[in-house]
Amino acid sequence: MTTPLHASPVSTDDIVQALTAIVGPQACLTQAPDLKPFVTDYRGLYVGQAAAVVLPNSTQQVSQVMAWCHAHGVVVVPQGGNTSLMGGAVPEAQASSPAVVLNLRRMNQVLAVDTVNDTLTLQAGVTLNAARSAAEDAGRLFPLRIGSEGSCQIGGNISTNAGGTAVLRYGNMRDLVLGVEAVLPDGRIYSGLRGLRKDNTGYDLKQLFIGSEGTLGIVTAAVLKLMPQPTASSVALAAVASPAAAVALLGEAKKTAGQAVTAFELISGPALDLVLGYLGNVKSPFEARHDWMVLIELTSGASAEGLDATLMQVLEAGLDSGLVLDATLAQSGADAQTFWRIREEISDAQTRTGGSIKCDVSVPLSRIAAFIDEATAAVLALEPQTRMIVYGHMGDGNVHFNPLRPADRPAKDYLAAFYEPISRQVDSLAHAAGGSISAEHGVGVAKRDDLSHYKSDVELALMWQIKNALDPQGLLNPGKVLPAPVAAPVVAQA
Amino acid sequence: MTTPLHASPVSTDDIVQALTAIVGPQACLTQAPDLKPFVTDYRGLYVGQAAAVVLPNSTQQVSQVMAWCHAHGVVVVPQGGNTSLMGGAVPEAQASSPAVVLNLRRMNQVLAVDTVNDTLTLQAGVTLNAARSAAEDAGRLFPLRIGSEGSCQIGGNISTNAGGTAVLRYGNMRDLVLGVEAVLPDGRIYSGLRGLRKDNTGYDLKQLFIGSEGTLGIVTAAVLKLMPQPTASSVALAAVASPAAAVALLGEAKKTAGQAVTAFELISGPALDLVLGYLGNVKSPFEARHDWMVLIELTSGASAEGLDATLMQVLEAGLDSGLVLDATLAQSGADAQTFWRIREEISDAQTRTGGSIKCDVSVPLSRIAAFIDEATAAVLALEPQTRMIVYGHMGDGNVHFNPLRPADRPAKDYLAAFYEPISRQVDSLAHAAGGSISAEHGVGVAKRDDLSHYKSDVELALMWQIKNALDPQGLLNPGKVLPAPVAAPVVAQA
Repeated sequence: MTTPLHASPVSTDDIVQALTAIVGPQACLTQAPDLKPFVTDYRGLYVGQAAAVVLPNSTQQVSQVMAWCHAHGVVVVPQGGNTSLMGGAVPEAQASSPAVVLNLRRMNQVLAVDTVNDTLTLQAGVTLNAARSAAEDAGRLFPLRIGSEGSCQIGGNISTNAGGTAVLRYGNMRDLVLGVEAVLPDGRIYSGLRGLRKDNTGYDLKQLFIGSEGTLGIVTAAVLKLMPQPTASSVALAAVASPAAAVALLGEAKKTAGQAVTAFELISGPALDLVLGYLGNVKSPFEARHDWMVLIELTSGASAEGLDATLMQVLEAGLDSGLVLDATLAQSGADAQTFWRIREEISDAQTRTGGSIKCDVSVPLSRIAAFIDEATAAVLALEPQTRMIVYGHMGDGNVHFNPLRPADRPAKDYLAAFYEPISRQVDSLAHAAGGSISAEHGVGVAKRDDLSHYKSDVELALMWQIKNALDPQGLLNPGKVLPAPVAAPVVAQA
Repeated sequence: MTTPLHASPVSTDDIVQALTAIVGPQACLTQAPDLKPFVTDYRGLYVGQAAAVVLPNSTQQVSQVMAWCHAHGVVVVPQGGNTSLMGGAVPEAQASSPAVVLNLRRMNQVLAVDTVNDTLTLQAGVTLNAARSAAEDAGRLFPLRIGSEGSCQIGGNISTNAGGTAVLRYGNMRDLVLGVEAVLPDGRIYSGLRGLRKDNTGYDLKQLFIGSEGTLGIVTAAVLKLMPQPTASSVALAAVASPAAAVALLGEAKKTAGQAVTAFELISGPALDLVLGYLGNVKSPFEARHDWMVLIELTSGASAEGLDATLMQVLEAGLDSGLVLDATLAQSGADAQTFWRIREEISDAQTRTGGSIKCDVSVPLSRIAAFIDEATAAVLALEPQTRMIVYGHMGDGNVHFNPLRPADRPAKDYLAAFYEPISRQVDSLAHAAGGSISAEHGVGVAKRDDLSHYKSDVELALMWQIKNALDPQGLLNPGKVLPAPVAAPVVAQA
């Protein structure tokens, strides 16, 4: 650790005065009611403290804010749409020194759309929806698709390497970023807004800012890849015999439809039950109740009829071989929307029910069926009435494995009894199967200390080596991602 | 800079004794004739000096070698197939202390093929050809395709983020790597051999080792993505009116054939002339001579007839609109092979001719045609008889822009007069167009000092921050990639 540049801690007044001079009084919030939405996380689980919220309108202003905070030892927490499920975008509750939240929402300009190079250049505060619309207006697709797309921002998508329902075909956010502009912890600007598919001139510095959750720099702009707009899609729901049958059906789909397989989402029986309970006007697509279902989407630039025929071929092969128990192909856009709505409402239905234990794990596809079986058995051994809400992006090996309280048991009670043991069991089984304990949701504060259990000492040490190299004072989004150093020489005193 | 751990430089005898104890006498080469192929680069332009060449057969041995060299301040140069075009894999000629070449050829085991997870796990010394064969034997495709595939190794492909002729569809090596195992400069082992498509548990450390040319760690094993094997391909050569017409035709191809467009390679008239001069038994596919041609390859899992029809549709639209002047569709696998042979022999034909100035540049597709026109005019203004060998992966915005000496002028004479001014002009024009001066060949020693001109101070400083964080003694592949620090506080004394 290097010695901070600042001699003594600055006061909140100093901070407000300095930052107001940079961004103007309208863009420097200081009153408690104004601060509240910026210091409270999406799920209301984490409430932090901040001296001020600044809303810069240019990279230059971000740079000036960072330079001042760096010189005065002030913590900065970067924030986009504040949709983190991990408490990654709000300040710590009990910080030793005052923090500033730097929200990028005013930097919301689409800077360029290039339909020859197939790139989109935009500021970090553009929402994912707005980015998708800009692409669509130009006759192109920006393929990232996640639940919070109306409010999450591109800068946050990059900083958290967002995933979602189209990763199977198009990859994660990391795969969709060609160039990044970022402000470093000391205020310097890394200008990497290049739209190149090939560039081997030294270290690929943009990778530092993708997925590091704002702990190494603040993404202020980016160049994203655009894709051809699919002209056709075909969607089906299929009831399958088991998780293993789902994996085998995915193999069939990839063999038959190749890269047209765009989404392959698992839905457990209890997840469907839960959603149908809330969506009063939607009926089950199946006559019988099934334990496991998958939503399959194919897209391509070819004809819709051809695509439907391909998907039917996959489903019929599955019915013949016993992998598929029942299946229904969307006969219209409205059908397809209903199928997707069932899938996408699972998350909200859990929130409204309360008392779910969210494990966002990934496992190699060759081991995912066994993992689901084992983890389910482990959970039910602890509490047999638990509702097994298991769903998500099976095509990527990623399932949201979210045990939910029994209907007659209060959420608080269930979580108090089972949050710890169930999380630990599920994560440990995923880890033992060569998997990840956070496939797409990131680390933030919620999973930070868990990394100590599941990362090697070498991995943790490397993370700290990088963090210390770029942010030696530890002023950028402290308390996130990195667990306390393994061999920290500091003795904690209460 | 930290203080080296070693008190005084060790002798060559010390080095040989210590490393022989680790890898055994057969795997520690010390005699000049044995060292020669390991210290001489692929093109014979760089000849370095080494105290020894070690050929470890396990990650553990690599770790032990690195730990010993780290403790004794000995430079290590990692080496795969030694096919770098940039002098990236051989030691420096005039080093201040003796170097060890660590070649990975003995670590050539395919460790696992998983056809459910679609992954290939292998040691770093497996050749690209062997990796492709292992995938093919399992009914899968490993899509990286470069000229040196018979001798280059996967570890080198990762360390240099290799590109090639299928990047348009499948991406660079960075996009094909799921997990990496690497030995750090101090001998610690980073164990990241995970086969996950989604893993957001902290910094994505494998990115550090991809494309950093062995300056941050030695890749010892990897998990690679496998793709479905295409069942059909369709290949055509088309003469086009200009580079701009080539770009427009690519747009047509992407619109009509979508992701089936696998390769889109530019070939200039002089490049075709040169190749046909060497390949006595191959005739031009065109009756007339043309200034610009493109090789287009579509691949898919559908039928060959359908793919041929799609490609014909692209070509006919091009003929109608005047983009295409003439075109020929491969009628057989032999035809397709001939077309590809013409393209692939361009590199060798230049080597045999001698006197070419190799610029491996990329530019956004929206600016590449103007770049080619401007750079051509700039070169011809300097020497109007220069043969404009311009070819390569236009689909990725990457061209090998290689001005070649006039037929009647000696290579040495031409290079002495024009190497510097032409390289500088071409690179500057690419840079001015938002491009890269090394699209896929990397930096090594050859382009190292050029980075000072084309990278910002912030980029160079960030590269050094990372390098110093991981290799504070500067013992791993020194003299490569990173130009001398901009603001080095050390005053050089002769």
